[in-house]
Amino acid sequence: MKAVLIEESSKRLYIGDAKEPVPGDDELLVSVKATALNRADLLQRQGKYPPPQGASTILGLEMSGVVEAVGRHVTEWKEGDRVCALLPGGGYAQKVVIPAAMAMPIAEAFSFEQAAAIPEAFLTAFLNVSILGRAAAGDHVLIHAAASGVGTAAIQLVRELGGIPIATAGSKEKLDACRTFGAKNLIHYKEEDFSAKVSEITSNRGVQVLLDPIGASYWQQNLQSIGPDGRWLLIGGMGGYQVEKIDLQMLMRKRIQLIGSTLRSRSVKDKIDLTQQFIRFSKDRFHNGALMPVIDQIYSWEQVMEAHAYMEQNRNIGKIVLRVE
Amino acid sequence: MKAVLIEESSKRLYIGDAKEPVPGDDELLVSVKATALNRADLLQRQGKYPPPQGASTILGLEMSGVVEAVGRHVTEWKEGDRVCALLPGGGYAQKVVIPAAMAMPIAEAFSFEQAAAIPEAFLTAFLNVSILGRAAAGDHVLIHAAASGVGTAAIQLVRELGGIPIATAGSKEKLDACRTFGAKNLIHYKEEDFSAKVSEITSNRGVQVLLDPIGASYWQQNLQSIGPDGRWLLIGGMGGYQVEKIDLQMLMRKRIQLIGSTLRSRSVKDKIDLTQQFIRFSKDRFHNGALMPVIDQIYSWEQVMEAHAYMEQNRNIGKIVLRVE
Repeated sequence: MKAVLIEESSKRLYIGDAKEPVPGDDELLVSVKATALNRADLLQRQGKYPPPQGASTILGLEMSGVVEAVGRHVTEWKEGDRVCALLPGGGYAQKVVIPAAMAMPIAEAFSFEQAAAIPEAFLTAFLNVSILGRAAAGDHVLIHAAASGVGTAAIQLVRELGGIPIATAGSKEKLDACRTFGAKNLIHYKEEDFSAKVSEITSNRGVQVLLDPIGASYWQQNLQSIGPDGRWLLIGGMGGYQVEKIDLQMLMRKRIQLIGSTLRSRSVKDKIDLTQQFIRFSKDRFHNGALMPVIDQIYSWEQVMEAHAYMEQNRNIGKIVLRVE
Repeated sequence: MKAVLIEESSKRLYIGDAKEPVPGDDELLVSVKATALNRADLLQRQGKYPPPQGASTILGLEMSGVVEAVGRHVTEWKEGDRVCALLPGGGYAQKVVIPAAMAMPIAEAFSFEQAAAIPEAFLTAFLNVSILGRAAAGDHVLIHAAASGVGTAAIQLVRELGGIPIATAGSKEKLDACRTFGAKNLIHYKEEDFSAKVSEITSNRGVQVLLDPIGASYWQQNLQSIGPDGRWLLIGGMGGYQVEKIDLQMLMRKRIQLIGSTLRSRSVKDKIDLTQQFIRFSKDRFHNGALMPVIDQIYSWEQVMEAHAYMEQNRNIGKIVLRVE
């Protein structure tokens, strides 16, 4: 099969030949139609994020496609079914093998490109906002980098859970997009101090849930923004990982729950549980349009270098998708 | 009524006169037989820990005694019942008023002194180990300051939940006591590196739950000791609150849940929920001796200064109790 490979010395990506994977008894062989970019792909390409043990060394943490063959224990899927799924790697390829229990059905109205934009963004948002963050009706949820794939998914989930999303982003275009997905409160972090604005919005009570892909550079303002018993989901370090000094008393006084969270490192069993919970939550909502994947750009996989360069510019609203051909 | 008061200038404690509290419709008036010391008492005496708004300014966060009068909406308690309870303050006195729903029954075999040793230690341990820490059968639970009131209660709770308590303390006597309460693994923190020992005990997997009243001075070793998805309950800062140079990536990589937790600052509603859950868990276990309050010393309340001085020496195994006369 063809797959996107990494040229060792230049770190450039090219389409070359790779060994086709073979499904086990509980697995599906999927003919990939589309995949989507994640920041981890950029790091992995540069050799800074080795794939987990046992995972494909090919890039790509999600995909959509058509079931081509099923293992002999699989009863719930058949050849020709349209599915999308999270992957530990291997999405930038014509074929992948996945555990049958990790396949998600694709709503009829969605294209493969739309479906490829779902797994990482929505499962990350669902895991953190809903399961770990326990966002409930009436909760204020502060979402940083809110125009990203995860951010736009989180806004929609919070809205569906009856919560009040507060979105931060760095441009007016991004904030306008956040509004259309349901963010009631918009903060342009380059133009105002988000913690002061959060105080105002929450009448000084702070937020109950904080989705934080930024890390170190926002530490102090996040501490101020979060309310008593608040859940602070640390999902990335776009603003660095090294915090110079922390005062544990602040964590205790507000009874803050600071939760380090990554999706990729979790066990297959965890990912299956998460996928199944998310299917129950989202199936009707994707069907009736209450939840929508958000796509910024679609590239052919032959333009994969352009797609990576575009992600590095950090201008995208929603996901960057690759059509696999 | 008589109560222990604080002499403003010298910060010495003396028994003087205070206004007797009056029970509301849903409250009990309790004639106090015993109270117990908490570190917060020492801080509050020195003016370093102001009582929460609305709380009595008299010291004392727990007590046992006899119901003397009940509010007109109270049906579940009557005059003469033996009860113990958590207090927001006011325990160093002949009378207290408590919400009826916060009263816990006293097992028949227990003295008032034993009962006074229960509320803070066991409710703190139960809240953190069981509710927030979600300790389950087979879990390794690392308990620092394990010979303290909270520590000895936590060891017993973990054992009852089917978990494996790992106790750290600073003397052989303390560790011997921890063993009798059910700690399977004992670490003398002055003589060995506890994180190395935890690695050995858990075959490098780390602990699932960490009960941490120490804070800053153990930060790095705690990070090493905790396992993937581990719950780290930060309940005190006996080793300081200021941590320098935190690497958030460590929290993310292990998906650590760092939970700042205090009991006193919680709402009455939270404390009632906690008390009721704990009564359900503990009632039979106190009755059949599976759970036992641990007392180091009993003082008459006339010796309250000696009792405080003794707590400052940090030599106690279990609680220091004051008999109220």
